Amino acid sequence: MDSMNIKEGRQRAVITAVKPEVEHGRFAIKRIIGDEIVVTADIFTDGHGDVAANLLYRKNGEKNWQSSPMQLMNNDRWIGQFSVLSLGVSVYTIHAWVDYFRTWQKNLEKKFIAGRDILIEIEIGLKWIHDSLQKQHDEELREWFETLQHAKSSNQAVTLAIDQKLYLIMRERYPNRLWVTELGRELPVTVDPPKALFSTWYEVFPRSTSLQSGKHGTFKDCENLIPDLAQMGFDVVYFPPIHPIGLSKRRGKNNSGEGQEADVGSPWAIGAKEGGHQSIHPQLGSMDDFVHLVETAKKYGIDIALDIAYQCSPDHPYLTSHPDWFRWLPDKTIQYAENPPKKYEDIVPFYFETDQWRELWEELRNILLYWIEKGVRIFRVDNPHTKPFPFWEWTITTIKQSYPDVIFLAEAFTRPKVMYWLAKIGFTQSYTYFTWRHTKKELTDYLTELTTTDIVEYFRPNLWTNTPDILTEELQRGGPYIFHIRLILAATLASNYGVYGPAFELMVHQAVTGTEEYMHSEKYEIHHWDRQSRESLKNFFTQINRIRKENIALQSTCHLKFYEIDNDQIIYYGKLHSDLKQSLLILVNLDPFHSQSGNFKIPLEELGMPLKHSYRVHELLFDRHYTWQGETQHVSLNPHHGPARIFKIQQPLRRESDFEYFM
Amino acid sequence: MDSMNIKEGRQRAVITAVKPEVEHGRFAIKRIIGDEIVVTADIFTDGHGDVAANLLYRKNGEKNWQSSPMQLMNNDRWIGQFSVLSLGVSVYTIHAWVDYFRTWQKNLEKKFIAGRDILIEIEIGLKWIHDSLQKQHDEELREWFETLQHAKSSNQAVTLAIDQKLYLIMRERYPNRLWVTELGRELPVTVDPPKALFSTWYEVFPRSTSLQSGKHGTFKDCENLIPDLAQMGFDVVYFPPIHPIGLSKRRGKNNSGEGQEADVGSPWAIGAKEGGHQSIHPQLGSMDDFVHLVETAKKYGIDIALDIAYQCSPDHPYLTSHPDWFRWLPDKTIQYAENPPKKYEDIVPFYFETDQWRELWEELRNILLYWIEKGVRIFRVDNPHTKPFPFWEWTITTIKQSYPDVIFLAEAFTRPKVMYWLAKIGFTQSYTYFTWRHTKKELTDYLTELTTTDIVEYFRPNLWTNTPDILTEELQRGGPYIFHIRLILAATLASNYGVYGPAFELMVHQAVTGTEEYMHSEKYEIHHWDRQSRESLKNFFTQINRIRKENIALQSTCHLKFYEIDNDQIIYYGKLHSDLKQSLLILVNLDPFHSQSGNFKIPLEELGMPLKHSYRVHELLFDRHYTWQGETQHVSLNPHHGPARIFKIQQPLRRESDFEYFM
Repeated sequence: MDSMNIKEGRQRAVITAVKPEVEHGRFAIKRIIGDEIVVTADIFTDGHGDVAANLLYRKNGEKNWQSSPMQLMNNDRWIGQFSVLSLGVSVYTIHAWVDYFRTWQKNLEKKFIAGRDILIEIEIGLKWIHDSLQKQHDEELREWFETLQHAKSSNQAVTLAIDQKLYLIMRERYPNRLWVTELGRELPVTVDPPKALFSTWYEVFPRSTSLQSGKHGTFKDCENLIPDLAQMGFDVVYFPPIHPIGLSKRRGKNNSGEGQEADVGSPWAIGAKEGGHQSIHPQLGSMDDFVHLVETAKKYGIDIALDIAYQCSPDHPYLTSHPDWFRWLPDKTIQYAENPPKKYEDIVPFYFETDQWRELWEELRNILLYWIEKGVRIFRVDNPHTKPFPFWEWTITTIKQSYPDVIFLAEAFTRPKVMYWLAKIGFTQSYTYFTWRHTKKELTDYLTELTTTDIVEYFRPNLWTNTPDILTEELQRGGPYIFHIRLILAATLASNYGVYGPAFELMVHQAVTGTEEYMHSEKYEIHHWDRQSRESLKNFFTQINRIRKENIALQSTCHLKFYEIDNDQIIYYGKLHSDLKQSLLILVNLDPFHSQSGNFKIPLEELGMPLKHSYRVHELLFDRHYTWQGETQHVSLNPHHGPARIFKIQQPLRRESDFEYFM
Repeated sequence: MDSMNIKEGRQRAVITAVKPEVEHGRFAIKRIIGDEIVVTADIFTDGHGDVAANLLYRKNGEKNWQSSPMQLMNNDRWIGQFSVLSLGVSVYTIHAWVDYFRTWQKNLEKKFIAGRDILIEIEIGLKWIHDSLQKQHDEELREWFETLQHAKSSNQAVTLAIDQKLYLIMRERYPNRLWVTELGRELPVTVDPPKALFSTWYEVFPRSTSLQSGKHGTFKDCENLIPDLAQMGFDVVYFPPIHPIGLSKRRGKNNSGEGQEADVGSPWAIGAKEGGHQSIHPQLGSMDDFVHLVETAKKYGIDIALDIAYQCSPDHPYLTSHPDWFRWLPDKTIQYAENPPKKYEDIVPFYFETDQWRELWEELRNILLYWIEKGVRIFRVDNPHTKPFPFWEWTITTIKQSYPDVIFLAEAFTRPKVMYWLAKIGFTQSYTYFTWRHTKKELTDYLTELTTTDIVEYFRPNLWTNTPDILTEELQRGGPYIFHIRLILAATLASNYGVYGPAFELMVHQAVTGTEEYMHSEKYEIHHWDRQSRESLKNFFTQINRIRKENIALQSTCHLKFYEIDNDQIIYYGKLHSDLKQSLLILVNLDPFHSQSGNFKIPLEELGMPLKHSYRVHELLFDRHYTWQGETQHVSLNPHHGPARIFKIQQPLRRESDFEYFM
C-alpha cells in the first residue's frame, strides 16, 4: 500500500531485542558441542490478545527447521532453548503469532468467573474445533468436541474448554498461523569442540627440548616430553614456528642487530632455501617425525598447536616465486616489516593490497590446510591484527566449513576494539591483557568486562601468565611466590589459560634491563632447561590442573563473580555453576611478599544454603575439610605457605527426617 | 571466492557500534528542525594504518549526499555531525577507508624523528603527488610538488610533506578511496516541528466551555477561552472527540449503566445519525466555526489538538455502510468492546483482521487527512495499543510524508515495551507512567530510564498531571499543595507536559470512592467551571509556563540529572544545558503537608564554576537574587509558602583583569 509495500496488515506480533545476537546476526555466537542455547526476546502484540512463539533451529545448510515453543517469563520477555549436538554452524530464529485459541480460552475463563453468559463463547469455540475436524481425521479432537458439545453445565463446559490438553492439540495440529511474524534473520552459532572453551596450554620451543645441553632439540625429544606434560595436566602443547629459518639479516642473541654465523635465528623469520611455511626446519626432524609426534600426543589427550605467522624471511621461496605478493620500493628493495621507529629487517610482510590478493589468500589458506592434513587442529595465529579482517573471516569460515573442529587462537595484543573484532570475525580464542592486570581493581574491572557483557558471546579469553615476548615487571621482581599467584589467577579466572612453559615452570625472571624481554631469550638461542630442578613448579601445575579437571565450575569462563573482602591485597571471587554444589569460592593474596588477612562473607543465600545451619567446606589446595557456621569468615594468606584458597561449599549433610523437622 | 562471495578483499576499514541508531536502522531517531545530529561509531582497520571517515547525509529521496569528515575521539571512537534544516525524514550513513596519504605522512615524520633515512619515503610521496597531477590541472598542488622536490634539506622536505594543507588537498581532491567500507544501511531521522519537543497541553471538553451554567458549550465559547489560555502559556489545546455521540447504550452520569434521556453521553462513543468521525456534534457548532477556531488559536500560537479514537458507537454510519469492518458473533450481534470482566457496550471496535483491512486502513487514514485539511496538526490518539502496530506505522509514515509537521501523541497506558514500540513505529510523543510515580525513588528511577538510555532517541515523554480518566489517590488526598508540587514536577522534569485543564486548575479532587475516576466526571455530563475562582491555579500556571519559555534548559527532556540531598522528601535535579549558564538546579518538596529541609551541593565543577569564588544565584519562582559561596547549601521548603526552588547559577561577575589576576 502506498510507498510502504505492506503485503499483510494483520501480522500483529512483534519480535525484538533478541539475545544472544552479535551485530544483528552478522556474526556468530560461540558455543561448544552439547551446549544448551538459551534464547530470549521481547514478544508481544497490540490489544489484549495472547501471543505464542516458537524457537526454530537447524544445522546450517539443512532444509528443515526443528522447533520448540518459547515461554513467557515476565514483562513481555520470552525464553526458549535448544541444544547443539554437532560441530559447525547452526542457526536459530523466532516465529511469533497471535494465539487466537489461547486468547479465546482466557477470555472464556475471565467471563465465566465474572458471572457473564458464556453460551456464545462456547459456540464460537465449538465452531472452531468443528472447522478443524474438517481438515483431517482426528479421533482425539472429535472426542473433545463431543464432550464439550454435550457438557451438562457451564462449569463443566468451561473446565473442558480451557483444558491445556485441548490447547496443545489445537496449537500443534491446527496452527492458526496465517499471519506469523518471522524474525527475518537467521542467527548463527559456531559450535566448537570442548577445547575451545576449556584448554590448558604449554608453550615450548622444540629446538630447546633436547636433554643434552647444547644440542638442537628434535620432534623426537618433544615426543619424550609428552607423557610428562600430560601428567601435569596440559592438553595443548604449542610450538613457535617449526619452519626453515632465514639466514639473511638473521638476528643474534638478545635480539642483537647482526647475528653471528653460529646464531640459530628467530623461528618467526620463516623461510629459507629448504622451504617455507609448508616445510620443517631440517634440524627438528622429518615430516614423518612430526606426524608421529602429533599422533602420540593425541593418545595422551594433547593437541600440538602450531604457530601461524604469515610473514617471510628475506630468503623465503615466495620472494622469487611470487614477487607480486610483496611491496617493492622505488629503489627496487623490498619493504621489510616496520612500525616506525621500530624495524624488523629479518621479516618481510605480505602485501595484502596486491592485485593478486586472491592468489595470496588461497596460498595462505593452503598452508593451514596442509598442516590440518598432517593432523594439526589448533593454531596460534601470530599478530592477526596486522592482516586484513576480510582475509581472516574468509579463511576461518571456509576452513571451519570443512574442519569444524579446528581452533584458532588470536595473538593480538592491540587496542580492545580490534581484539574484539578479531573474535567476532571468527577467532576461537584470544590472548588478553591479563598479563598486565595486576591489582585487585585492574583484575576485577577487566574480568568483569570479559565475563558479564555481550563480549562473552564471541570472545573467549585465554589467560597467559607469560610469553616469550612478555616477562612482566611483576614477574621480574615479585620473587618466587608471584609465580604461584599468577598461575592460580590464570587457571581459575578463565577456563582457557597458557604458560610459556619451561621459563615459567623454572620461575625465570631475568629480563633485558628496562624491557619485558627475557634475558637470553629463546627466541634467538637454544636453551637447555633443567625441568627436574627442585625449583620447578611441576607439582604445583599438576595440582592446579587436576583441580581444574575435577571441577566443572573451572571449565567455563562466564559465571565469574567478584565479592568484597576488607583487604585490597586479597581478591575474592566465585566461579558459580548452575549446580550450586559445584560452585567454588576463591581467595588469592596478590601480595607475594607479605601475609594478608581479611574477613569475607560466604554468599550462602546465593549458593542455596540455609543461613543458620552449619556447613561443610572443602579447601581444594590443601585438601582440608572444615565445618563452618555463619556467613562471615576469616582468612589469612601467607604467600610462603600458600597464597590462595579454593573453597567448595558443601550442602549441610542432613537426613530426610531433618528436612521434615525443619520444614 | 568460495562460498563467501567476496568481491573485494582489500576493503580494510571497519565501521561498527554506530550511535544513534534504533533497531539497526529499522526505525528513525527523532529530532526537531534545526537540531545538530551527533553521530559516533567505532572505526578502525588492521595494522598500523590510519583510517579516515565521512558522515554522509541527505533528505530522504534526494539523490546526492552531503558529507562531512568525522574526527577520532579516542579508543577508535569517531564523531561527526550534521544539522537537519527541513521537516521530514533525513538519512545518514558512514563511509570509512584506509587513509594512505595520512599514513605515509605519519610514518615519514616518525622515521625522520628516529633519525632514519627518508629519501625513499619522499620519493614515494613525490610520485603520489605527481600521479595526482596527471588527473587534472591543479596549480596549487603543482606548487607543493615543486617546492617539495627542491627542498634544501630533509628537515624542510619533511616539514612540507607532513603539512595539513597538503593533506587536505590530497584528501578532498584526490581521494584514494578504491576500497571504501560503507556502513551498508541508511539510518533515518524524523525531523519534527519544535512543538514535538517542547509543548504545553491544556485538555478541555468543548461542551463545558459555556460561561452560562447549564448551557452546552460551543466552538465559539472555546474561541473565547483562547486568549486566556495563551496568556497562561499553553500552546496546545486538546479536545476530546468532537463528533456526534451515539444514543444506543449511552452511558449515564458517573458511568452509570443506562443513561437517561437527558444524558449527554461520552464523546468517545463516536457516531450517530448525524455522522461519524468526519462530522461535528451539532451542538458544538458548524465546520466553519471549527475552522475559525483553529485559525484564531493559531494566531495566539496555539494548536487545537483533536482526539483520534478509532471506535464507533452502535449508531455509527459505518455499521451499516461497512459491516465487514466489524466482528459479528454467531447470534448476529456485534462484538462490542470488552476486556473481561470489563465491557463497554456503548463502543464497537473495528475488526482489524477483516479481509477488508486495506479499505479499513484507507478510511481511517482519510479521517486524519480530513482534519489535517481543516488545519489540525496535532492528534492525541486514544488507546493506540489496541490497534495493530503495522496500521500505525503505515498511517503515521505516509501522513508525515505529505505533512511532516503533524504531531501524534500516543495515549497508551499499557506495558512498557508496548509503549516504547508505539514510539518506535512513529508516535511523536507519548503519555507516561508519571501520574503514578510519587516518591523520590519512583520519580528518579523512571525519569532516569526515560532520559539517559537509548529510549531518548525515539520516545518523547509527555508528562500529564491528570486526565479525565486519572485522578490519582495522591491528588485526591494531598490537599492543595500537591497540585503545586505535581505541576512543577511535570513542567520541569520534561519539556512536554499536559493537564486536564479546568479540573486541575481548580484543584478538583473528589473521586468516585475507591477509583481514580472523577466524581461527576465530565466524560458523562456537562460542567460549568468557575475559572475566575480565587482558588484557581491560573497565576501559578502563568508563572511556571513563563519560566519554561524563558529557560532553554526546560525546553528539552534529556540532560536531566538527579543529585543527592539528605532528605528523602526532597527531590533535587539539574536541567543541564551545553551553555552552562543556562542550566537550572531544581528542588521540590514532595511532602504536601510539612516543611522539609536539607543540605545539598551545587555541582560547581560540572557547571564550570571556580570552587573558591562566591557566585550569584537567581531563584526563578520567587525572583530573588543571592550571593553564595561554597558548594554546600541549605534549603527549607514549606509547601504553603512554596514547595520548590528553581535556581539559575550565574557565572561570577569578573572583569577581564580579574581573569588575568587569577590565571
